[in-house]
Amino acid sequence: MTLTEMGQAAKQAAAELALAGAKKDAALRAIANALENQERKLLDANELDLKLARQSGMRPAMLDRLTLTHERIAGMAKGVRDVAAQEDPIGQVVEGSVRPNGLEIRRVRVPLGVIGIIFEARPNVAADASALCLKAGNAVILRGGKEAIHSNTACAEIMRAAVESAGLPEDCIQLVQDTTHASADAMMNLTGYLDVLIPRGGRGLIRHVTENAHVPVIQTGAGNCHVYVDDSADIDMAANIIYNAKTSRPSVCNAIETILVHQAIAKQALPVIAARLAEKNVELRGCPRTRRILGESVVPAAEEDWETEYDDYILAVRVVDSMEQALAHIAKYSTGHSECIVTNSYDHARLFQQRVDSAAVYVNASTRFTDGGEFGLGAEIGISTQKLHARGPMGVRQLTSTKFLIMGNGQVR
Amino acid sequence: MTLTEMGQAAKQAAAELALAGAKKDAALRAIANALENQERKLLDANELDLKLARQSGMRPAMLDRLTLTHERIAGMAKGVRDVAAQEDPIGQVVEGSVRPNGLEIRRVRVPLGVIGIIFEARPNVAADASALCLKAGNAVILRGGKEAIHSNTACAEIMRAAVESAGLPEDCIQLVQDTTHASADAMMNLTGYLDVLIPRGGRGLIRHVTENAHVPVIQTGAGNCHVYVDDSADIDMAANIIYNAKTSRPSVCNAIETILVHQAIAKQALPVIAARLAEKNVELRGCPRTRRILGESVVPAAEEDWETEYDDYILAVRVVDSMEQALAHIAKYSTGHSECIVTNSYDHARLFQQRVDSAAVYVNASTRFTDGGEFGLGAEIGISTQKLHARGPMGVRQLTSTKFLIMGNGQVR
Repeated sequence: MTLTEMGQAAKQAAAELALAGAKKDAALRAIANALENQERKLLDANELDLKLARQSGMRPAMLDRLTLTHERIAGMAKGVRDVAAQEDPIGQVVEGSVRPNGLEIRRVRVPLGVIGIIFEARPNVAADASALCLKAGNAVILRGGKEAIHSNTACAEIMRAAVESAGLPEDCIQLVQDTTHASADAMMNLTGYLDVLIPRGGRGLIRHVTENAHVPVIQTGAGNCHVYVDDSADIDMAANIIYNAKTSRPSVCNAIETILVHQAIAKQALPVIAARLAEKNVELRGCPRTRRILGESVVPAAEEDWETEYDDYILAVRVVDSMEQALAHIAKYSTGHSECIVTNSYDHARLFQQRVDSAAVYVNASTRFTDGGEFGLGAEIGISTQKLHARGPMGVRQLTSTKFLIMGNGQVR
Repeated sequence: MTLTEMGQAAKQAAAELALAGAKKDAALRAIANALENQERKLLDANELDLKLARQSGMRPAMLDRLTLTHERIAGMAKGVRDVAAQEDPIGQVVEGSVRPNGLEIRRVRVPLGVIGIIFEARPNVAADASALCLKAGNAVILRGGKEAIHSNTACAEIMRAAVESAGLPEDCIQLVQDTTHASADAMMNLTGYLDVLIPRGGRGLIRHVTENAHVPVIQTGAGNCHVYVDDSADIDMAANIIYNAKTSRPSVCNAIETILVHQAIAKQALPVIAARLAEKNVELRGCPRTRRILGESVVPAAEEDWETEYDDYILAVRVVDSMEQALAHIAKYSTGHSECIVTNSYDHARLFQQRVDSAAVYVNASTRFTDGGEFGLGAEIGISTQKLHARGPMGVRQLTSTKFLIMGNGQVR
């Protein structure tokens, strides 16, 4: 099957799915049950991927991401059931009015249509992303990495059969078998079929898709996040937030990469912060003033340190003259994901939230909360760092569009 | 000034504009006054464009679009004042909650940032588009056609001075002086500076931008719109709606290009419809069944007639077997702008609105109402025919994004 044929099949499935109502939830519950009941099939396919990965010398952290277990499959099934339990956004009336000429106008929520997902090694993405797309009435075309092709194929087969058993077309979910660069590039150019393409993976993947796609793209997951410690900050709170935002899960996009510390508080605050981070052996890379305070053991920070998403137990540290300098630093280096100020100043809290141009701007809380579930919005397909269509956690509602319905009795203009 | 420098200046201006509050309205009123007070400057510049256009043999319809008059300038000023009088969307709280852990979360409306507009010969677009962008707190980079360069330059100069007189940076509004293809292509690739690019003009321009841009694009204005006359339709109402939707302003995107008539009503309805359209000498291009009913004077319709946006006194006519066939025709040929069913069947009305995948779906009213003002949404920058971010009339609110503001007292995850 060519990608164009898959696009056509997806469009046809999407038209049926748009009007499927509660059948979608039945399909999702069928998927969850099938993932559990066919655990053996998933584990066997995954074992094949793992064997090939070990032979190719994949590093342990990546091997871990690729691995499926009984617990992880149960987690996938639970995730799908949680999505089924969410409110259906389709058909919701967003706004409406009766015009002076008697026209009744409603803007209602409708599916986007066909969503493409390009993702890397985690095989759970196939189930998570498909569930969210399906709930919002969209057909999905998945294109995973070659490392997980056997796991993804098994997962897609299980999901397609489950969808069909619930009376919906199996082409609501399709998996691209070709895992070469050519297939990713072809998806980026599938205009007329893909209503949006969402890359899920590392910075390189996202940049490649953003720079080369001719279908609409939503950028997710680039997180060069900052904590600014204001001169009025509670130092223990600052250390606690920084410790959490850096070390609770360093590989995720809402973890921080740089802290900015006001010069008036740096001498007292930096040793406390450094002591907390030392518990997890976090490597610090500091500006000259940071090194004067914390000593030569701090690695000197280079320009590229301000730009880097370490995704690791490494943190860049800069002492700033003022909040203005912190704001300028953030404006220059942030990817627009999540930033935090730790402060006791009402004015600085207010100004920081007004001026920082990021998806989530915190006062006195860890950036790790930038997450659909934590915000009370339900499961998410990613954190959008762009401003068009969706910004911040993208849940089911962000996978929809709207249309206007107008009812009259012969009105002309 | 290079386009990159313009992008930098726009970003800086946008940061100030994002927090400008009521100053934006003062700037808009200053623009409106300046357009009126400096009418002479605008008319002189326009006369130069018109002289060059006449020398180059521009056709009358295009010359008319290019022409500014006292009335048209007054209309531009009024348009800007109307935008100033609208509610400011910036800062509106879209949703919010307090989480169980005490985090207070608000999603607030913020500007998109920097908006690029590529437009063709109408010089009023410079003022209309700038006013909407400014109201929503965005800086704008305008790139008009070479035919209107003197008019656009005069207009931009007047607006920039007015913006500055109101205490905002003049670079809130910038005009690209280079009107070659190279400058349009450069705008399409101004990633990192343009948050969105909106092409306003003919189908060729929009397609070129959509296919080649690497910045986010919103497609507007492609309108291959349909009226379907159901077997249960009131024939006089159908004729009246078709007459209005075709002839009240054939050059606009919400005018219709094709009608589909149910075979059970075609014999009675088509002569009535044709008689109405004959009042304006509308050329009909019909399928074989249409020609059997209306006679050989109807031009035979070719495949391309179903695809063409005539923007003229021409209408394609097809007799269909059923509503299903009408829906299939629309699914195949529509650009997703506006479609209408004329019917007295409750079921068909409901089904048509559910199944047609267009920005605006009408029952018993003219498609000509697809317009921000007519929908009660205020002035618009265009009609989006895509599903991402904005669909249908794009007003001030569609020129915004949102961000999450989170306030805590030390929460960690």
